[in-house]
Amino acid sequence: MILRDLRIDPARLTSRVERLGKIGALEGGGVCRLALTPSEKLGRAHLVAEMTALGLDVAIDPIGNIFGTRKGRSEGPAVMLGSHIDTVATGGLYDGALGVLAGLEVIATLNDGNIETDLPVVVAAFTNEEGARFAPDMLGSLVFVGGLPLAEALDIISIDGKRLGDELQAIGYAGTDQGPEEVAAYFELHIEQGPVLEDEAIAVGTVLGVQGISWTELTIRGRSAHAGTTPIRLRRDAGLAAARIAAGVGAFVRAMGEDQVGTVGAITLTPNLVNVVAEKAVMTIDLRNPDESLLQAAEAKLAALIEQVAGEETVTIERRTLARFQPVDFAPTLIEQVDGTAKALCLSTRRLFSGAGHDAQMLARIAPAAMIFVPSVNGISHNITEYTAPADLANGANVLLQVTLKQALPTNGEDA
Amino acid sequence: MILRDLRIDPARLTSRVERLGKIGALEGGGVCRLALTPSEKLGRAHLVAEMTALGLDVAIDPIGNIFGTRKGRSEGPAVMLGSHIDTVATGGLYDGALGVLAGLEVIATLNDGNIETDLPVVVAAFTNEEGARFAPDMLGSLVFVGGLPLAEALDIISIDGKRLGDELQAIGYAGTDQGPEEVAAYFELHIEQGPVLEDEAIAVGTVLGVQGISWTELTIRGRSAHAGTTPIRLRRDAGLAAARIAAGVGAFVRAMGEDQVGTVGAITLTPNLVNVVAEKAVMTIDLRNPDESLLQAAEAKLAALIEQVAGEETVTIERRTLARFQPVDFAPTLIEQVDGTAKALCLSTRRLFSGAGHDAQMLARIAPAAMIFVPSVNGISHNITEYTAPADLANGANVLLQVTLKQALPTNGEDA
Repeated sequence: MILRDLRIDPARLTSRVERLGKIGALEGGGVCRLALTPSEKLGRAHLVAEMTALGLDVAIDPIGNIFGTRKGRSEGPAVMLGSHIDTVATGGLYDGALGVLAGLEVIATLNDGNIETDLPVVVAAFTNEEGARFAPDMLGSLVFVGGLPLAEALDIISIDGKRLGDELQAIGYAGTDQGPEEVAAYFELHIEQGPVLEDEAIAVGTVLGVQGISWTELTIRGRSAHAGTTPIRLRRDAGLAAARIAAGVGAFVRAMGEDQVGTVGAITLTPNLVNVVAEKAVMTIDLRNPDESLLQAAEAKLAALIEQVAGEETVTIERRTLARFQPVDFAPTLIEQVDGTAKALCLSTRRLFSGAGHDAQMLARIAPAAMIFVPSVNGISHNITEYTAPADLANGANVLLQVTLKQALPTNGEDA
Repeated sequence: MILRDLRIDPARLTSRVERLGKIGALEGGGVCRLALTPSEKLGRAHLVAEMTALGLDVAIDPIGNIFGTRKGRSEGPAVMLGSHIDTVATGGLYDGALGVLAGLEVIATLNDGNIETDLPVVVAAFTNEEGARFAPDMLGSLVFVGGLPLAEALDIISIDGKRLGDELQAIGYAGTDQGPEEVAAYFELHIEQGPVLEDEAIAVGTVLGVQGISWTELTIRGRSAHAGTTPIRLRRDAGLAAARIAAGVGAFVRAMGEDQVGTVGAITLTPNLVNVVAEKAVMTIDLRNPDESLLQAAEAKLAALIEQVAGEETVTIERRTLARFQPVDFAPTLIEQVDGTAKALCLSTRRLFSGAGHDAQMLARIAPAAMIFVPSVNGISHNITEYTAPADLANGANVLLQVTLKQALPTNGEDA
C-alpha cells in the first residue's frame, strides 16, 4: 500500500528544473547548453553535485555520460532512468533536463521513504543528445550501447571545428569509469515536444516507439560569377540549386501527408554576398517517419530531386549521411506498465509515437525500454518559449516513480 | 600627328596591375580588398604613392574618394579617368583596378611625351563601388555627384556591423579635400565581366549605357520549432519561405529571357541547425535589366511571389531596398569618340550595354560620361580566375589615352 501512496514532491521537482534552467540561461528566457561547451560543463557540475548530495555513486564514462547509482539489495542489473542535459542553441528548460531531474526526484522520494530496492536504480545523463553541435545526435547513448566505436566518436568534429575528444578533455568529462554492465529496464520521462497531448487534454502519453530519422548533408559546388553580367544560361549557381532542393523537399513532404515531416534547417552560401553568384552551398535535410518503408520512399524522392537539380543547374552535389535511425518499437511489457500505472494514478493517457529522437531508442538495443510523455504548451520545443506546467511535470514523475518501483522492487511492486 | 602615334607602355601597364594585385592577394590567386578594410587601406596607400610619383596633386574627399590631378594650361573643368580599387571577397585583379591604373598609365604617357593639355586630367578612385561590404554599391561616386548626403553615407553599417564613417577614420581616409568642381568628361576603362566580346573575338567594347539595378533585402520571420515533432501544417518555417522565394526568382527570371538577370546571392538562416525549424531568414535579391519597364515588371513578379509565400507559409516578410538604379544611357558624343577612336586605332569594336553597375553611371548625372570595355576570359569576374590578356589591357588603355586627349587637348585632338 505504501508504494501506491508514495508520491514525488511537485515543488521540489519544479525547483530542480528551475535551478538547472539558470545554467546557460538566455536573455528573455530559455537556455543554451550546447554539448561540451562551458555552459554545459556548469550544468554537468551542478548535476554531479546533486547526485552526490542524494548519496548516489557517480561514474563518468569515456564519452562523458554521467551515471548516478543508488545501490539495491542485490548486485543485479540496474533499473535506469535517464535522458540528457545538453540543449540546442535556443532551447528550453525541459527537453532532456526533465528526464534526468525527475530521476533525481524519484531517488529523493525513495530516500525520504527509506525504501530499499532489490535492484540498483541508476540516473543517467547522456552526452550530446541534441546533435546540434556534434552529429549524430543521441551520440552518448549510442556509444554506451555499443552502436558507435568510442574512438570514432571522439574524432567527430563540431560545427565550430572542434574535435569531440578534445572538447571532452577541455571540460574535464573524459571519464575512465564504466556505466552499468547490465540494464534491467530503461525509462525516460520527456516532454512531448509536439501538440497532441495538449490538444486532446491528456495528462500522460504512453510512447509506443520513435519514428525513423534520416539526416543528410549536401555540399553543392557551382561557380562564382558576377551577378549582373553573367547570363542565366551560363551560370552554375550553387545558391539557386540549394533553394530548389529546399523548396522541393518542402513540396514532396507536404504531399506525403501528416506522418512525414522534413526540414531544411541549415543553408550556408559562399561567399554569401548580394552581387555574387554563390560558388558553394552546404545544406542539411532532416526527414522523419514512423514507418521505415515510407521513410525510405522520402529518401528516394530526395535522391531524385538532388539528381534533377544537379543536372539542370550544372552543379556538383556531394552527399553525406549525418544520421540514420530506423523507427524503434518500445518493449510491450513496459508500455503496458506505463499505461496501467497512469490509469492506476487516475491520469488520462493515450498511446502515441515519438516525433523526436531520444536516448531511449538507443537503450532499446540492449534492454527493455519505454518512455513517458507529458504535454508541451503549444507543442513548442527547441525554442525559448518551451513550457510544461508543474502539475504535468509531477504527473509524469509519479508515473516514473511507480514503474521504477515495479521494476526495482517487483515483490511489493505487484500491489503498487 | 604626334598624338596619333602616341601609345601607352603595355609592359608598364601590366606591371601596374600586377603590383596592385599583390595587395590583398588570396592563396591560389585573386584578391580580397573589401572596402575600408586593412588590405584596401594598403591598396589606397600604394595608389597615392604612385600618383605622387607621377607628379599628381592628390586630394581625398570626405567619403574617401581619391583624386590625382595633372594640371592643364587652363583652370577649366577636368577630364576625369576613374573607377575603383575595392573588390568583392573573392575578386580578381582587373575589376575596377584597370580603370584607375590605366588612368595612371595615361598620365605617365603624357608625362613622357611632355604633353601639356588645355584642361586638367584627373585620375579618380571611388570608395566602395562593389557594395560587397557596404550597401549601396557605387557609394563613393554617388556621394561625389550629390546623389546621397554625406552624413547619411557615413552612417551606413557594414555586413560585419561597422559604421562606414568609423571605418574611414580607422584607415585614415576620411579626407577634408574636395574633388574637381566641374567635370568636362568622364571616361572609365573596365573589363566587360561578361562573355560577349570574347565570344565574338572583339577587341574593344563601346558601352552604350548601364542596365538598371534593383537590390532588395528580405527579413523573414517565422517560429522556431522542433524538426521532428511539429506537424508541417503547424509550422511557420522561415527557411522554407526563403528557399521558395529564391527558387521562384530563379524561375521567373529564366522565363523573362536573356536580358533579365536575377540573383539570390545571400541567405542567412537563424539558428541554422539541422533539427530546428528556422525562426528567421535574411536574404537578398539582385534584379537587373537594361529596360526600365522590364525591370519594373521583374520587381512586380518578386512582390507577388513574396506575398504568396508569406501567406502560404504564414511568415511575416519585411522588405528593404538596398539599391535601385534606373538604366543609364551614356553621352552620344563620347560614345562616338570611343567608337571612332577604336576604329582609328584599327581595333575591332561593337556597341553593347553594361551588365554591371559602374561609377560611370553616377558621373553621368553631372557630366558627359562613357565607358570602354575589354574582353574577360570566359566572361568571368567577381572570381579569382578573372583574367584579361595584356594585349587587351593595352588596347583599352590606348583608346582611353586618345579620347582623353580629344577632350583635354581639343585643338591637336582633332588631328589625333
